[in-house]
Amino acid sequence: MSTIKKEETKVVIIGSGVSGLTLGALLSQANIPFILLEQSSLSAIKMQNRAGSVEARASKMFFRWGLGDVVVGPPAMDTEFRYEGKSYMLSTNVGDGSIDSEVRLCPQQLLVINLINNLTEKNCALHYEAKDVKIINLETKKPTVTYTDKEGGKHEIYCDFIAGCDGYSGVSKKVIPDGILKKYTQDYGITWLNLFVDIKPKICMSMGERGLAAQFPRQDKSRVYLECHPTDKLEDWTDERCWKEIKSRMYEPDMEETSILEKSLFPLRSAVFEPMRYQNIFLVGDAAHIISPVGGKGMNLALYDADILATALKSYFETGEETALDAYSDTCLKRTWNYQEFSSSYVDMLHDSSEMLGKSPYRAKLAKANLERLIELGSASRLYSEMMAGI
Amino acid sequence: MSTIKKEETKVVIIGSGVSGLTLGALLSQANIPFILLEQSSLSAIKMQNRAGSVEARASKMFFRWGLGDVVVGPPAMDTEFRYEGKSYMLSTNVGDGSIDSEVRLCPQQLLVINLINNLTEKNCALHYEAKDVKIINLETKKPTVTYTDKEGGKHEIYCDFIAGCDGYSGVSKKVIPDGILKKYTQDYGITWLNLFVDIKPKICMSMGERGLAAQFPRQDKSRVYLECHPTDKLEDWTDERCWKEIKSRMYEPDMEETSILEKSLFPLRSAVFEPMRYQNIFLVGDAAHIISPVGGKGMNLALYDADILATALKSYFETGEETALDAYSDTCLKRTWNYQEFSSSYVDMLHDSSEMLGKSPYRAKLAKANLERLIELGSASRLYSEMMAGI
Repeated sequence: MSTIKKEETKVVIIGSGVSGLTLGALLSQANIPFILLEQSSLSAIKMQNRAGSVEARASKMFFRWGLGDVVVGPPAMDTEFRYEGKSYMLSTNVGDGSIDSEVRLCPQQLLVINLINNLTEKNCALHYEAKDVKIINLETKKPTVTYTDKEGGKHEIYCDFIAGCDGYSGVSKKVIPDGILKKYTQDYGITWLNLFVDIKPKICMSMGERGLAAQFPRQDKSRVYLECHPTDKLEDWTDERCWKEIKSRMYEPDMEETSILEKSLFPLRSAVFEPMRYQNIFLVGDAAHIISPVGGKGMNLALYDADILATALKSYFETGEETALDAYSDTCLKRTWNYQEFSSSYVDMLHDSSEMLGKSPYRAKLAKANLERLIELGSASRLYSEMMAGI
Repeated sequence: MSTIKKEETKVVIIGSGVSGLTLGALLSQANIPFILLEQSSLSAIKMQNRAGSVEARASKMFFRWGLGDVVVGPPAMDTEFRYEGKSYMLSTNVGDGSIDSEVRLCPQQLLVINLINNLTEKNCALHYEAKDVKIINLETKKPTVTYTDKEGGKHEIYCDFIAGCDGYSGVSKKVIPDGILKKYTQDYGITWLNLFVDIKPKICMSMGERGLAAQFPRQDKSRVYLECHPTDKLEDWTDERCWKEIKSRMYEPDMEETSILEKSLFPLRSAVFEPMRYQNIFLVGDAAHIISPVGGKGMNLALYDADILATALKSYFETGEETALDAYSDTCLKRTWNYQEFSSSYVDMLHDSSEMLGKSPYRAKLAKANLERLIELGSASRLYSEMMAGI
């Protein structure tokens, strides 16, 4: 019979994505002991390649916690919209130009690596390849997390709080008894073909009856997204077809056909679980909610949750005051729903001109009117910029 | 064989609703001769009882044309929203408090009567009970309108321009050859039960899973609108059921049950016809577009069209310049689509929490988030107020 190694800490963080690492970094700044468990290997985590921009609010948040260095990237460039080939430019910066007042193009991968480096330098307890993570004694004052390390050693960690930062399909949510969480979902009936293309980066969303084509910076190259039918398969999209659609939907018939380096499909969908707390387990980021990528709010919601939870834990450990912990779920859900609405309306605008999706000509006209108001009416531009900045 | 009386004028206006009368009043201010034909009797027109608020832009427009006196009514009061019983107040005034800077509660009926009085005092040619109105020679430089007056006399009017102000089902649109107009429609799948109720006036829109109840001022009483199923019949809605739903949806169980003075059903739908001009016939107001009542923009679009057309005609008759006439359709359609989008999004917010309409719990949460942002985020309130004001 193998020995079980018993440990004790204040907070166990399950998951080493943006939410778990950010929470760890904030707790470490507040000198709150924690142990972070991640089932994947460190190298796999570092290689996860995902887009991302850090909203001004989240950037400020890192500075506020003394962690401004982890957000590295240029300010987001102006956004170009196209409607049936006509170009509309929109600046989304509402700040004063200082480093913490702008939306920054910091890929999620880079943020993850910077956070890991920060935590490693501070000798924080990050345990990768932690297998068979289980949560027990959740109904007690000292919930316990058990796992098996990569050498096969068994561990039991007694803690005050568990932060479920393990994504949409993680164990944290599954341990919550049936009937506690209410699930809200939206399936847009739209799939995006996600391409990594060797073309000069810019932000451009081009709408029209052929459907959306969108381009976002990815270091010195671009992500290109093509709206496609939800039943499409990857093999339906040859490079030739991709380029035909990119050029047609972007209204750039002379665009040079460069290399398409990656290709994947993802359906646009959203889900929210309420409440975001059960006993002393807190759901953070994707564990509690996923959001359509339109508007770029998924990562920023995770950062917000981590901020609210770290602040509440700091208050609790410093003063014994539980008010902020009790407010965690409502506070985070308010922002979640605000962003869900923003993203959902944005999806409508981007996709409502698509004939393939069966949108009516009336809806297409509304999408165009919405875009024109956004560009031409100051208060509409301002609202959009503030939503992008996360004010 | 009866004699045909032949007349000549610059503009024939068909229809004596808000758009026709406003156009007439503006043309008269510009000393442009016109003849207005209306198939109904003067007393019937004066009795048409319809709600309405005049946006600040339209109010300013009347002042600009020296007709400020026709818009009579108090400034719109603050708007109350309720979501599942929780109250949210919103002020929609963005002006400086001067008489022409505010949304004014001027019922359509009152505006119509004031405009008729204005035109009658100036001895303008308003012909009521004009039967069998026909448009001929539309392809020529001198289109002709024929009609039979109430004594049976036949008339032929030669003119330069015809203004089709005769509503959604009028003759003006029908005379345009097939294939010219493109029709865009939206059926919301929602019907409003429209009640005239003896309760103290206020502006209140109450949302929730039971569906919308909305209350608007109607002089010293109120219009109350209850969302109902599109297949509902008037006899399904007894006074008892109306009051049960009003009290329940307004979250006012103790409301006193007063008299319900009128009851009617109308389905929420929108339609736009493009372009708004064919040869020398111009479609104005409802003849070119109808809009859901949410946002109160139907009458204001008619006023806008009349303003743009009168301005263009003034320019043409003073200088021979046709640029403004040529731009009429595009100019009006731009505002039409802007308002259609505003109204459509507003309908979504008001009705997306309704279980009867089969809306998902996710959509209901979005509606609530949309409302909360509208109330709590300054730029969102500002945008809404500007849209209401017609800036």
